[in-house]
Amino acid sequence: MSANEVVSSAAVIEVKLPDGSIREVASGTTPLDIANAISPRLAAAVVVARIRPLRPAASRRDPEAPDSPASEESMYAADATDLDGTRLVDLTAPLTEPVELWLLKEQDEASLKVVRHSAAHVMATAILELFPETKLGHGPATDQGFFYDVYRPTPFSDADLAAIEARMAEVVARNEPFVREEEAREKGLTDYAAEGEFMKVHFIEKFTKPGDEISLYRNGSFSDFCRGPHVPSTGRVKAFKVTSVAGAYWLGDEKNQQLQRIYGTAFFNGKDLEAHFKRLEEIKARDHRVLGKQLDLFSIQEVAGSGLIFWHPKGGIIRRAMEDWMREACIKRGYDLVFTPHIMRRELWKISGHEGFYSANMYPPMELDDAEYRLKPMNCPGHVLIYKNSPRSYRDLPQRYAELGNVYRYERSGTMHGLLRVRGFTQDDAHIFCTPGQIEDEVVACIDFAQLTLKTFGFDEFKVELSTWDPNDRKSYTGSEEHWHLAINSLKSALNRKGIPFREIPGEAAFYGPKIDIKLVDVLGRMWQLSTVQFDFNLPERFELEYTAEDGEKHRPVMVHRALFGSVERFFGVLIEHYAGAFPMWLAPVQVGLVPISEKHLEYAQQVKARLEAAGLRVELDARNEKMNAKIREFTLQKTPFVLIMGDKESASDSVSVRTRGKGDEGNAPVADFIRRATTLIATNAATLTVE
Amino acid sequence: MSANEVVSSAAVIEVKLPDGSIREVASGTTPLDIANAISPRLAAAVVVARIRPLRPAASRRDPEAPDSPASEESMYAADATDLDGTRLVDLTAPLTEPVELWLLKEQDEASLKVVRHSAAHVMATAILELFPETKLGHGPATDQGFFYDVYRPTPFSDADLAAIEARMAEVVARNEPFVREEEAREKGLTDYAAEGEFMKVHFIEKFTKPGDEISLYRNGSFSDFCRGPHVPSTGRVKAFKVTSVAGAYWLGDEKNQQLQRIYGTAFFNGKDLEAHFKRLEEIKARDHRVLGKQLDLFSIQEVAGSGLIFWHPKGGIIRRAMEDWMREACIKRGYDLVFTPHIMRRELWKISGHEGFYSANMYPPMELDDAEYRLKPMNCPGHVLIYKNSPRSYRDLPQRYAELGNVYRYERSGTMHGLLRVRGFTQDDAHIFCTPGQIEDEVVACIDFAQLTLKTFGFDEFKVELSTWDPNDRKSYTGSEEHWHLAINSLKSALNRKGIPFREIPGEAAFYGPKIDIKLVDVLGRMWQLSTVQFDFNLPERFELEYTAEDGEKHRPVMVHRALFGSVERFFGVLIEHYAGAFPMWLAPVQVGLVPISEKHLEYAQQVKARLEAAGLRVELDARNEKMNAKIREFTLQKTPFVLIMGDKESASDSVSVRTRGKGDEGNAPVADFIRRATTLIATNAATLTVE
Repeated sequence: MSANEVVSSAAVIEVKLPDGSIREVASGTTPLDIANAISPRLAAAVVVARIRPLRPAASRRDPEAPDSPASEESMYAADATDLDGTRLVDLTAPLTEPVELWLLKEQDEASLKVVRHSAAHVMATAILELFPETKLGHGPATDQGFFYDVYRPTPFSDADLAAIEARMAEVVARNEPFVREEEAREKGLTDYAAEGEFMKVHFIEKFTKPGDEISLYRNGSFSDFCRGPHVPSTGRVKAFKVTSVAGAYWLGDEKNQQLQRIYGTAFFNGKDLEAHFKRLEEIKARDHRVLGKQLDLFSIQEVAGSGLIFWHPKGGIIRRAMEDWMREACIKRGYDLVFTPHIMRRELWKISGHEGFYSANMYPPMELDDAEYRLKPMNCPGHVLIYKNSPRSYRDLPQRYAELGNVYRYERSGTMHGLLRVRGFTQDDAHIFCTPGQIEDEVVACIDFAQLTLKTFGFDEFKVELSTWDPNDRKSYTGSEEHWHLAINSLKSALNRKGIPFREIPGEAAFYGPKIDIKLVDVLGRMWQLSTVQFDFNLPERFELEYTAEDGEKHRPVMVHRALFGSVERFFGVLIEHYAGAFPMWLAPVQVGLVPISEKHLEYAQQVKARLEAAGLRVELDARNEKMNAKIREFTLQKTPFVLIMGDKESASDSVSVRTRGKGDEGNAPVADFIRRATTLIATNAATLTVE
Repeated sequence: MSANEVVSSAAVIEVKLPDGSIREVASGTTPLDIANAISPRLAAAVVVARIRPLRPAASRRDPEAPDSPASEESMYAADATDLDGTRLVDLTAPLTEPVELWLLKEQDEASLKVVRHSAAHVMATAILELFPETKLGHGPATDQGFFYDVYRPTPFSDADLAAIEARMAEVVARNEPFVREEEAREKGLTDYAAEGEFMKVHFIEKFTKPGDEISLYRNGSFSDFCRGPHVPSTGRVKAFKVTSVAGAYWLGDEKNQQLQRIYGTAFFNGKDLEAHFKRLEEIKARDHRVLGKQLDLFSIQEVAGSGLIFWHPKGGIIRRAMEDWMREACIKRGYDLVFTPHIMRRELWKISGHEGFYSANMYPPMELDDAEYRLKPMNCPGHVLIYKNSPRSYRDLPQRYAELGNVYRYERSGTMHGLLRVRGFTQDDAHIFCTPGQIEDEVVACIDFAQLTLKTFGFDEFKVELSTWDPNDRKSYTGSEEHWHLAINSLKSALNRKGIPFREIPGEAAFYGPKIDIKLVDVLGRMWQLSTVQFDFNLPERFELEYTAEDGEKHRPVMVHRALFGSVERFFGVLIEHYAGAFPMWLAPVQVGLVPISEKHLEYAQQVKARLEAAGLRVELDARNEKMNAKIREFTLQKTPFVLIMGDKESASDSVSVRTRGKGDEGNAPVADFIRRATTLIATNAATLTVE
């Protein structure tokens, strides 16, 4: 027998490791065996395995990339293969075909969800041991931890939750192995039905079909219908907490049983768990809805409606700074500012395709004597009409139209969330009409502009995603194959020219073209989808846009949508949370608070106020008959960047005593020096209060 | 008999003249007799008389004030007395009771309408002489001339109009006296019916009642049912022209006969007539709809709807300049900028009273899952909600909220007119919430601000009107008598403090409070209603607004609405017409056009462009391969303020050859000098192109 023949024999399979090396192992070998063969330390560190059959795949995504969020389907579906052709398996799963293998450790993004999923099983074990009458729903991992939906007529008390958490510690201490078992679907259904587990019966019926084998995961005496994978044993669930319980109707229908959703979270170690709760506290302290009220920035008035923002004077100052900066930046970059109406005839929305594809997100029509009108959910058709209003030559291109456009989109009542999810918002919207040859330069300029915008407002970290089509699903997309290739390649070359790493997501493009999304990372490490650059093959076609090219013939221009703030309202919400309301000088509604020590320093304080205001500063003088410390406290609560205190010494020496936000007393400074410092911070859009 | 007894005798009446003197004349004396008694020159100059019975009147308006526009009612109504108790009468009307008498000459505003009304009779005379089958409708004077609606199956050709005009000259030459005749209504009806004059029958039935005497005016053989008054004879119609004919349905109903409306105009002399047509040409040349297209400033897109404005890039530049100036000016004057949503719940519009009082002007409701919403026709309720969001103390007042608010108001389709009458517009709206004691200072500040605004944008002449209530019609107004007195007095003292002459118009206030309207006068002498300062007693009451006063008690604040541009769209329309599109530097979309004489000067032109742009100028370089003169002509058509021409000489000496709009070639200037001149013009919002 030659070596080749050994490789192809049924008893031996090839396993390709991430370093490119190939191991030949007996069929039935587990990933844990392979880890042990490499090193026992590795075996102790690995959490779960990812495999991909060793055969050519059409589109391969980086398997280190994060998973998409958990869904019921992904938990139970028989074909649980990811888009990139890989799938997660237990470390104890026997390998029976040639595969690529990744041994995932704690650091790998997918691992945390696996341990959380196992923690959900541990919690279910504890619940059934303590409250055996409980019936189980499903228990997935989430971004923040895990939950289990259960049915029990008696509500779980705080004491019950504490008991469950304590019992979970026992289950973990027992270090029961998670064992995958397979059995006939019909047996599963019969057994669960006999136990009154109506929800399990439902899930098996929903996610498997007659004749299927179903998988169960058992630890100790607890067994659960589950796709897996899991950590090798309950002992690997090292740091966890049961956090809360909330009501939910079975299948979301209020005519059904009321379930209890018990929430918990889990990490690989106590340090991470502690950091998680600290972070939650920080997130709470930065809640833009709370800060918006406390700093009097904005309100939502239920009497006026849901998801509609009222910008108060102090919020209005920040909005003006945002808008002025954006308008100026647009002009500098060759954009023209246009203004288009908020309502347009239904006929127009038919031409644009919104009546067909977007109607459910639009407000209902208003019938006037000449036509029906609808509020605009997007600014595109307005800009298209301006383009179309004059004949265009290649010499006129690119045309770049920018508008701070107010759009209205229907969201169900009850789904709104502060500034982050609203019904009415202002897009810093622009549309670029250009020739195919100009695309790449325009996209590079858009990315530059987006990065400048995010940096200016204090965000230094971004993640870039390129959403492309699914070439196997041509019917879901408009535009020719040639156009899609051109557009996707232009976007890629633009990103490569800028040296920007990006993640490509096939099948995530809009029907009208591919797009680049730039997600910013805030001070708490949260990602926010704000800036976007999108191609549009649809509107130029529907509106029959044209330009006369060098060849004297009419050609169709390419159209690029782009928004950098995305939504002014949403960006403002993210800004508030990012800065926890402690805005940099150029954005702070009140930049300087003035505190005269007593009545007799009031006149000097007024002089200083006049000088600061003449230098363009936003100043508030607290002239009330209150104690100095009370006034300082007030400004501190308002997160005012600087508080200047003025007494005998200061008024005698034309100076002020400077208290800096986050630093406290910085001592005495001549008024002129302070003005220089303050105006420099503003002129440079400085993120900190220190001139660099 | 004593003198007193003579005065009260039936045969003698008192006539009081404008100088206060009283004449005793025999009853039956005519105004023309009195004019003759004063001087034959006066008798030749007077056109018509105005009288008022000598008895006390409740409200007396200045009788020199202009009439309200002609309406059918005012032409025929039996009681044709004006609001101020005066009425116009023929110079030949016998006076039979004691009266005040004004002898109106050509200069008096009411005179022109009388001569135009007489001209309409002259035209009717001519039409019936030439086309005796014609039936007559009505023929009033208008602001621009007069018309007569007539019925004749055959359309009037241009040649017919010329013939009518020629025949009118004959009627005038015949100098036929206008004689007022009275006869029984029933005789009039019978005679007209016999002649087939169906429209005259209709008017007699509509405007008189059984038993009335009706008045007819006869000249020569032509007689017309008419209230009068007229000039003494056809010879007084000295300068006139028949201008056009248009179709109109009898009583505005398309099921009725189609009438022909023959238009003409008349003046006291040929010079005025000529000036009128010259002015019409100027108005036509300044039509903002034509210039808006020619200069590519804005468009109205029928596919998107009526009365909705699309601001193109060049119009957008002007709008941005307007908005930036206004926002900056508001901040300087202690206003806060706020932003409120474009739609609000129907419930809110019920509270505000708009559902009751303003619903017909609002767009229909849109029903969502939580409530019905309506587009805002005004910004007030939004600002009220912001005020109401926090407890307010007298120390916080005044609160001044400003917003460039987009409002939508329903107008019938077909009534829109360019930028001047639209369905959607942007108010530079502000609301001031203050204590009663602060009203006067706030109103003075508003008037100052309004004047500054109008002056900055190039309007030096204003007329101010104070609209107050009709105290005899209390039920039409909300708010207490005390409040109305306070408000009216505050407005008056504010105007007096500023030394601003104003005209008071009782009965013209809104139901919710008195107001000051500031009308600007444009370069053609046309008046435009734009700025307004209004009191509101209604909303603070309806929304139960409060502040805590010095006495520790809750009080109701006063609310002032004010808008200075009024509507940004409308103001823009007026600006375009005022400047005939030749905007001052700071508003001009393209400020400097660059023309290299040939290819070889292109590089120098590009250098100059970069320098001008670095200085903040908006520059367009015409780099096409075209003749220099063609390029200059293009910039001239675009009304570009400066065109700089660059050839060998200029590039050798770092200079440009300057062509100034309206002046032409101004010779050579160093580039640095030109930049200084241009930036100074912009920084000072200069109205001309000359640094002063």
